[in-house]
Amino acid sequence: MTDDLAELPEAAEGDYKLERSTISAVREAIEGMDALAIDAALDPLHPADIADLLEQISSGERRALLGLWSMGIDGEILSELDDNLREEVINFLPAGVLSEAVREMESDDVVDLVEDLEDDQQEMILGALEDADRVAVERALSYPEYSAGRLMQRELVVAPEHWTVGEAIDFLRREDDLPEQFYHIILVDPGYHPTGYVTLGKLLGSPRAAKLLSIIEDSFRTIPVTQPEEDVAYAFNQYHLISAPVVDEDDRLVGVITIDDAMIVLDDEAEEDIMRLAGVSGEESLSDRTLETVRQRLPWLGVNLFTAILASVVISQFEDILAQIVALAVLMPIVASMGGNAGTQSLTVAVRALATKDLTGSNLWRVVRRETLAGLVNGIIFAVIMGIVGVLWFGTPMLGAVIAVAMVVNMVVAALAGILIPIGLEKLGVDPALASGAFVTTVTDVVGFFAFLGLAAALLV
Amino acid sequence: MTDDLAELPEAAEGDYKLERSTISAVREAIEGMDALAIDAALDPLHPADIADLLEQISSGERRALLGLWSMGIDGEILSELDDNLREEVINFLPAGVLSEAVREMESDDVVDLVEDLEDDQQEMILGALEDADRVAVERALSYPEYSAGRLMQRELVVAPEHWTVGEAIDFLRREDDLPEQFYHIILVDPGYHPTGYVTLGKLLGSPRAAKLLSIIEDSFRTIPVTQPEEDVAYAFNQYHLISAPVVDEDDRLVGVITIDDAMIVLDDEAEEDIMRLAGVSGEESLSDRTLETVRQRLPWLGVNLFTAILASVVISQFEDILAQIVALAVLMPIVASMGGNAGTQSLTVAVRALATKDLTGSNLWRVVRRETLAGLVNGIIFAVIMGIVGVLWFGTPMLGAVIAVAMVVNMVVAALAGILIPIGLEKLGVDPALASGAFVTTVTDVVGFFAFLGLAAALLV
Repeated sequence: MTDDLAELPEAAEGDYKLERSTISAVREAIEGMDALAIDAALDPLHPADIADLLEQISSGERRALLGLWSMGIDGEILSELDDNLREEVINFLPAGVLSEAVREMESDDVVDLVEDLEDDQQEMILGALEDADRVAVERALSYPEYSAGRLMQRELVVAPEHWTVGEAIDFLRREDDLPEQFYHIILVDPGYHPTGYVTLGKLLGSPRAAKLLSIIEDSFRTIPVTQPEEDVAYAFNQYHLISAPVVDEDDRLVGVITIDDAMIVLDDEAEEDIMRLAGVSGEESLSDRTLETVRQRLPWLGVNLFTAILASVVISQFEDILAQIVALAVLMPIVASMGGNAGTQSLTVAVRALATKDLTGSNLWRVVRRETLAGLVNGIIFAVIMGIVGVLWFGTPMLGAVIAVAMVVNMVVAALAGILIPIGLEKLGVDPALASGAFVTTVTDVVGFFAFLGLAAALLV
Repeated sequence: MTDDLAELPEAAEGDYKLERSTISAVREAIEGMDALAIDAALDPLHPADIADLLEQISSGERRALLGLWSMGIDGEILSELDDNLREEVINFLPAGVLSEAVREMESDDVVDLVEDLEDDQQEMILGALEDADRVAVERALSYPEYSAGRLMQRELVVAPEHWTVGEAIDFLRREDDLPEQFYHIILVDPGYHPTGYVTLGKLLGSPRAAKLLSIIEDSFRTIPVTQPEEDVAYAFNQYHLISAPVVDEDDRLVGVITIDDAMIVLDDEAEEDIMRLAGVSGEESLSDRTLETVRQRLPWLGVNLFTAILASVVISQFEDILAQIVALAVLMPIVASMGGNAGTQSLTVAVRALATKDLTGSNLWRVVRRETLAGLVNGIIFAVIMGIVGVLWFGTPMLGAVIAVAMVVNMVVAALAGILIPIGLEKLGVDPALASGAFVTTVTDVVGFFAFLGLAAALLV
């Protein structure tokens, strides 16, 4: 079984995999302390793949590799590393390698690199930058975390809005210091306010005499520098933007955000939602050590223990009837479990719809009504099934009726809780992905046990 | 409360919202059958926002709006609509409006539009296209669903690899029919095999005499036309691609995929994972009707009922001891619930790590060991807490010991099941996001009840 499982992921990875053979080769080279062999194995790889490799080997191997190959680590690899490994790697790099690495990075990548570092590491890296770059990075760091100001790059191409296509092309051909990647020329008025943009394709396809203003794109929209990055990602996804100018509070151009940065944010946000819905901290990483994992999982398990005890307290109120009719103890988890599942379905739909801005004041009550009705219909379907199962199993028609009614009640409550709790949390400014699960399952456990045992106590003795 | 809740989402939406006032204006205009007012409200909106509005109003309002404003529906709005609404809207559109709408679309958008339609609707739309476009769309439809061939556009810009910068610029300035959006010039050899690409920015910034081959990008990589779209999205995200040429089995250039399409796939894949982990079909949409919602949720609830009954069968094996010690019925859900939560944490981490290719043969056993150890440590922590609670609550030290041991056992099993079950499913070709939850909670319920009640039966009488 070891081999079978170990071989698993490759089949699914298609062309874009860090070859298992590469990792083996690197491991062997590490063991043999063979820096040349490491270089030969890693040199053809994309920096993102080298970062993945660093994440996948053990921490002992990582230290050995860095000892042998620290000069191979460049800014791109650092950018691609998981936050929690980045500090470890930076600590290990000789100062010279580190300065070289950060000097070749774009300003937005340096910001991304330093923003999560400890103060002393941050200062070391800022100190390695040239003055102009350091000022740019420090200004970016003055914007709120997770804002457009942190995400944008300052390298951009602007043109006065009165220019013609010919003037813009001549300017580009003259200019030595164009950004590594750019997709638009941003038009600015004399006050440096962006007023439109032109794609390079349109520029190349238009007559030299044409005014830039005559070929600007409809898709143009500016992004406030303090806007939360998740809203930036939403805008890129919703409006299919490729790049967007960022403006300060006076509407002056301060930077540009490109779609590749927005894509990373979108991916991170979805990842965070998935993790939080399952009670895992969004910061957890596969390369964490055991104790870090324990620490990340503990809080949610603690919350769950509390809610489970709450449910047990409800059960304990019915000890008498449980002692008389043991069948109740056998059947009661079914009611709670079905409610919990129905509630999780509703809450996941609600959390996602809130995240994608599909659930708004305009359709809220229609969605609540739909969820409630769907809960009712599914509740009735499963009530009938469980009623029959209950009767057949224990031969007591009234027991079947009790579980059926409790099931309907709990599934309707689950649907309502599943949608209203995330909405309430969002309104309170709490991320609904983070806390909804605990509240919803508490409600469905408590209501499930109470409805089932309460009805049994009233009807079965 | 109505008002409070109804106002909620706006606060969080920042600049990118479909204004509530716009929706109200459209609703009023629909009620007053005022086509001009509808036009005035919708005309300034982005097609994506118009599509959102169509999704958020009720189906009655939607029909009325389409009756009054069908000439306003264009290809872009159709592209942005949810699949399940698209058919409804297309059915309602006059044939002339529909042909006009699809004729102005790029080939990849037409493919996206028609691939999920019924045969007769598909034929109607294909019939409205010009011959060349129809052939292109039909060829795209011949590629497997969710493959690169469906995602790519055929509109692209190529240059022979021996060209200079000057020749390429002159060609672009001469060419009348450039694609709406393009970011690279793809270099091809005489056999039409792509050999590199050049960004437009680099093209504009280089001397006319320079060879294109001297300014090609490192990031160049081709995508096989049959590659699954999720692997395409992974490649764009991992390697920060902006566009990538697509090649057939002979490595000949057949199209190009751009980052905006990859971003949509990435978003869809994450959405599907989130939904499937919660037992909701990935195809569910907020604009579904109640019965559709019931149908989408039913299968998972059915699976859950089956697993819950399985757990009940385990409990029923211990009816004797339950009748003697009612405290067992009170405490047993806690063991199962803690195991279920710990298992969900592990499985979510595993499912995501498989999706992002972070969990591979290279680190599998290290991750399994870490999860097991973390489960053990958390299990011991909560075992101590619950042991104390059990003793304090019921005054029976042995009961505290029983629940403590059962808790440790179940949380270790949960951690193991949480990681091994998704990996096993992936190996079998089943999406681990889809089915892991049911298996893991079955395991934790069965093991939880069996360990707790079995130990109690052995030690407490």
